[in-house]
Amino acid sequence: MNKRFILYLLGCILCFEAAFLVLPWIVSLIYKEAQGWAYLCCAVILGVSGGTIVYKKPKNTVFYARDGFVAVALSWVVLSIAGALPLWLCKDIPSYVDALFETISGFTTTGASILTNVEGLANCSLFWRSFTHWVGGMGVLVFILAVLPLAGGYNMHLMRAESPGITVGKLVPRIRSTAMILYGIYLAMTIVEIVLLLITGMPLFHALTLSFGTAGTGGFGVLNDSIASYPVIQQAIITVFMILFGVNFNAYYFMLIRKWKQAFEMEEVRAYFLIITAAIVLITLNTMRMFGDVFAAFHHAAFQVGSIITTTGYATADFNQWPEFSKAILVVLMFIGACAGSTGGGMKVSRVLLYVKSVIREIEHFIHPRSVKAIRLENRPVDQQAIRTTKVYLAAYFLIFFVSMLIVSLDNFDFTTNFTAIAATLNNIGPGLNVVGPTGNFSAFSALSKFVMMFDMLAGRLEIFPMLVLFSPLVRKNS
Amino acid sequence: MNKRFILYLLGCILCFEAAFLVLPWIVSLIYKEAQGWAYLCCAVILGVSGGTIVYKKPKNTVFYARDGFVAVALSWVVLSIAGALPLWLCKDIPSYVDALFETISGFTTTGASILTNVEGLANCSLFWRSFTHWVGGMGVLVFILAVLPLAGGYNMHLMRAESPGITVGKLVPRIRSTAMILYGIYLAMTIVEIVLLLITGMPLFHALTLSFGTAGTGGFGVLNDSIASYPVIQQAIITVFMILFGVNFNAYYFMLIRKWKQAFEMEEVRAYFLIITAAIVLITLNTMRMFGDVFAAFHHAAFQVGSIITTTGYATADFNQWPEFSKAILVVLMFIGACAGSTGGGMKVSRVLLYVKSVIREIEHFIHPRSVKAIRLENRPVDQQAIRTTKVYLAAYFLIFFVSMLIVSLDNFDFTTNFTAIAATLNNIGPGLNVVGPTGNFSAFSALSKFVMMFDMLAGRLEIFPMLVLFSPLVRKNS
Repeated sequence: MNKRFILYLLGCILCFEAAFLVLPWIVSLIYKEAQGWAYLCCAVILGVSGGTIVYKKPKNTVFYARDGFVAVALSWVVLSIAGALPLWLCKDIPSYVDALFETISGFTTTGASILTNVEGLANCSLFWRSFTHWVGGMGVLVFILAVLPLAGGYNMHLMRAESPGITVGKLVPRIRSTAMILYGIYLAMTIVEIVLLLITGMPLFHALTLSFGTAGTGGFGVLNDSIASYPVIQQAIITVFMILFGVNFNAYYFMLIRKWKQAFEMEEVRAYFLIITAAIVLITLNTMRMFGDVFAAFHHAAFQVGSIITTTGYATADFNQWPEFSKAILVVLMFIGACAGSTGGGMKVSRVLLYVKSVIREIEHFIHPRSVKAIRLENRPVDQQAIRTTKVYLAAYFLIFFVSMLIVSLDNFDFTTNFTAIAATLNNIGPGLNVVGPTGNFSAFSALSKFVMMFDMLAGRLEIFPMLVLFSPLVRKNS
Repeated sequence: MNKRFILYLLGCILCFEAAFLVLPWIVSLIYKEAQGWAYLCCAVILGVSGGTIVYKKPKNTVFYARDGFVAVALSWVVLSIAGALPLWLCKDIPSYVDALFETISGFTTTGASILTNVEGLANCSLFWRSFTHWVGGMGVLVFILAVLPLAGGYNMHLMRAESPGITVGKLVPRIRSTAMILYGIYLAMTIVEIVLLLITGMPLFHALTLSFGTAGTGGFGVLNDSIASYPVIQQAIITVFMILFGVNFNAYYFMLIRKWKQAFEMEEVRAYFLIITAAIVLITLNTMRMFGDVFAAFHHAAFQVGSIITTTGYATADFNQWPEFSKAILVVLMFIGACAGSTGGGMKVSRVLLYVKSVIREIEHFIHPRSVKAIRLENRPVDQQAIRTTKVYLAAYFLIFFVSMLIVSLDNFDFTTNFTAIAATLNNIGPGLNVVGPTGNFSAFSALSKFVMMFDMLAGRLEIFPMLVLFSPLVRKNS
């Protein structure tokens, strides 16, 4: 393993994080908040230590796939450990374990919080919390690839390990250009959302933080009741943008280069909108009597469906009080998740499509044992290795799920709480049901459970295998 | 598709079921119960209609794998529809839907009941209920293969579609001999259990019915509190036999032919006992304080672990009241299930082993992309097709699970009830948690939910694909 080069990448991560930390410091200056020193202080420390590491560029750039996995997993761990420092130092979150949970929840765009009173935080800390969503949404290594003029075969390995989905969405032959296009679209869409929210009269600070949370499909808000107290028009704007950020970004690229037909014919995107439509209609019908009004039912159904399938986790209503059928739909959406190549989490629509197609293919195989049709996705046959990895992903996913649930159940909360807490963290959503419902939070869990859920959030964001490779004894044996 | 031959097999099924129905009629004579007429009446009707069908043996014995799947799935449906008739006709279960649910639950060895008062049933009906477990445990088509001198390639297809596990456990080259050996071991073990229970002073009727329930890993009892009011020694005997019937029967065959080393070195059986031991130890530690006594905690832990992992479903304690960690362990055991080639349900230990190995193999593959080691089970490489089917099984399993949960949640019971009701029926266990806990039952669900769970019980017993093939539009298109 190329340890020297991985260290160099970690140094880059620290430098970029130092730069990011300047933003909350500026926020603290504007609001004249005492907590700002922690952000400046951490920025300096990270900047100096990162700078020392990257000062000498390593000569050996030989870099294998496993190095990519280890580098990405380590980057996310380091990013989180460092990012939690200011929250803890400024005493906005007095426990470091809690600060780390909150930061991992931020970078992985989960949005699960241990805070009982969000409004008690300083604005600079609220800004930093939301900004971690924006950085984590598109990926920090993708950001580095877009900004730094790195050369060599390793960037493909990094992109593959960090980007969600079955295969890597390489838009153009050069990785750096792909990363730049992705971040360009991402930035532009975020700005459009901010502007729209400002036009409807939302204060700038709220517009910024909520747009970061929407763009990264994170879910941290700045008010205790999440999004419930904003005007309906602003909730509607957020609904639309949550759903838009859950679309495979390839579709936007196709639109940019005016390949409209390709954009609108993407199988995954079509399935995504079909699932959303079906879920909204069913929940509207199911909750209509409760709300006493079709429009209100539709509005809340659309918001919550958009929030859960994209794994954002904002809430305008306490869906914990909804009928069980609506709750069950939301739980199923938690697992499906958004499109591959979006900022959303979960299993991804394309994986679910592949599972459905594999089952149909297997039935065909029982009926015609000699048929050898390949499974197709987006009008292309899926290669055997991708199919295998995707199938094993399901096994790994449920193994982690059940082991996590066992450990968390030691805290003796009810089954629904434990089950949905793991579903909400492993799928990077945020709220679950009961204790961790939209009006609850994760503060009551033990430190052990919090560490398990931190692992789950990272495993969910990086799609499991990078974290397993990092913790595998095999990788040390072969380094 | 060879429809004529499938019809012939269904005729055989009806004839055998007619013969089976004579047994509860005899029970009704002994106890002088009025309900006996229904059993005799149904025996005659099934016998005559079955006899008419099998009167002329079909000449065309060409029989493909898909025919095997369709034949087995249809056999189980017909067996259940016919088997529910006497329960309904004698008015012990006044609703036919409920009688069908109870019969499917019996044949699939689930043990989920819609009865609120088991003790209100006539002894002949209680006997029939328990006897369906014994027939379903080892499989009705395996029984036919053992008894009838059928010849031709089709019996392999039938055995494969009905027997649980990744590959078929062919003990000896001839299918008929394999089926006879399996049923021989099964019968002998059942008799040993009956004798032991009689020695400890259990009345014959209880010893018979409970042994049928244990042998088939079914779980129907004859008392309202399941097994709770029997003496501890009898509970202990049932514990041991539940666990023994969950062992891969190949191990017993190896013992019979004195291949002790092979018997004790079976990877799946070792893993099965390891999981059982770990679960018992953890639950004993977790419930010790509640029971106030290590022995009582151990006794109940062992019984419930044995009951759940083998998917029997008997209960000596209301584990719904246990700490959440113990409940979570039981929920995980529900999914793991017993060994392949046993009478137990669930995913089977060998499948879980294969999933764990696939994940490890995939991590190795990320670390050494060019390594091509095959996955080994029981010291043999597993062939590619079996691995593929096993992986797709997982996808099919969870697709059915989530769709079922969605439909059942329309009845508006809580999430834990819905989740564990599907887990308990798809894995052929019986009780779940909350409403369907050990002291509850399935009577409160709507007819729609009951039909969904009937499908799940059959899908669980036949390991999903036969039921999917039966209901697939493809099979009609190609018939």
